[in-house]
Amino acid sequence: MFTPQPIGYVSSPFTDPTAIPKGCGAAHPEEGALQILPEFEAGLTDIEGYSHLIVLWAFDRSTGYDLMVTPPTDDKPHGLFTTRSPRRPNPIALTIVELLGREGATLRVRGIDMLEGTPILDIKPYLSNIPAEKLRRGWLAEAEARKAASLQIS
Amino acid sequence: MFTPQPIGYVSSPFTDPTAIPKGCGAAHPEEGALQILPEFEAGLTDIEGYSHLIVLWAFDRSTGYDLMVTPPTDDKPHGLFTTRSPRRPNPIALTIVELLGREGATLRVRGIDMLEGTPILDIKPYLSNIPAEKLRRGWLAEAEARKAASLQIS
Repeated sequence: MFTPQPIGYVSSPFTDPTAIPKGCGAAHPEEGALQILPEFEAGLTDIEGYSHLIVLWAFDRSTGYDLMVTPPTDDKPHGLFTTRSPRRPNPIALTIVELLGREGATLRVRGIDMLEGTPILDIKPYLSNIPAEKLRRGWLAEAEARKAASLQIS
Repeated sequence: MFTPQPIGYVSSPFTDPTAIPKGCGAAHPEEGALQILPEFEAGLTDIEGYSHLIVLWAFDRSTGYDLMVTPPTDDKPHGLFTTRSPRRPNPIALTIVELLGREGATLRVRGIDMLEGTPILDIKPYLSNIPAEKLRRGWLAEAEARKAASLQIS
């Protein structure tokens, strides 16, 4: 296997994990930057043509994991691999960001849900979608439906 | 940083990298399996409710990288981070697969583009799409348009 190395770091408005919106319908409108290390800048050539990027990064402030997790979106436990929990056997995270602009090795992006100083592992182009009519979202869809129903009742 | 560890291995019809379809419009209809290690099986609880999964895996047969890459889809070089090249500073790959079924720690899936025996790093639920009208795909869209135009001419 490989040894993970940062290709850059996130500039984020978030310094406290509890301030990052989580759970059902959490929006991530925050802007920030991906500060890529100078030695990798050439790898960003032509990236301006893409509207969205896949960012892989390390949950560097998370330790250990449990195989059953009760996520913020539900009151029942579910398998770890059906959740986005930061505590995982390989603590690799994935965020889709909107690319707003580039200045040299700095990518200005919208959709930041990382903490300030988070190490970035990789950037890939976002190329295509799964057709919406083919997508099923398991327990999360059920939890959202329950939440919506309880809001209508109350 | 963390030390990557396999949570399982891919059962794939592909044993030769050159047999995997690549480039413009490459479809990946192949079926295979994600053989998760027994000690992680509980983490799959409730995964049957999801139609699509994000699989993170290691390009374990790739070494080194170049920051400029000429991909199979184009005849011009582009920045590494605008491509899906297997040769990357952190050789982590991402594949979206359709979940066909589960037997214990084995997930039968469609959309395999990994080699037989590839180590799996993580599985995450696929939850949402970027609206198609907001998606721009940079040099890849241009290369596809050029290819389509040349097919019309010839």
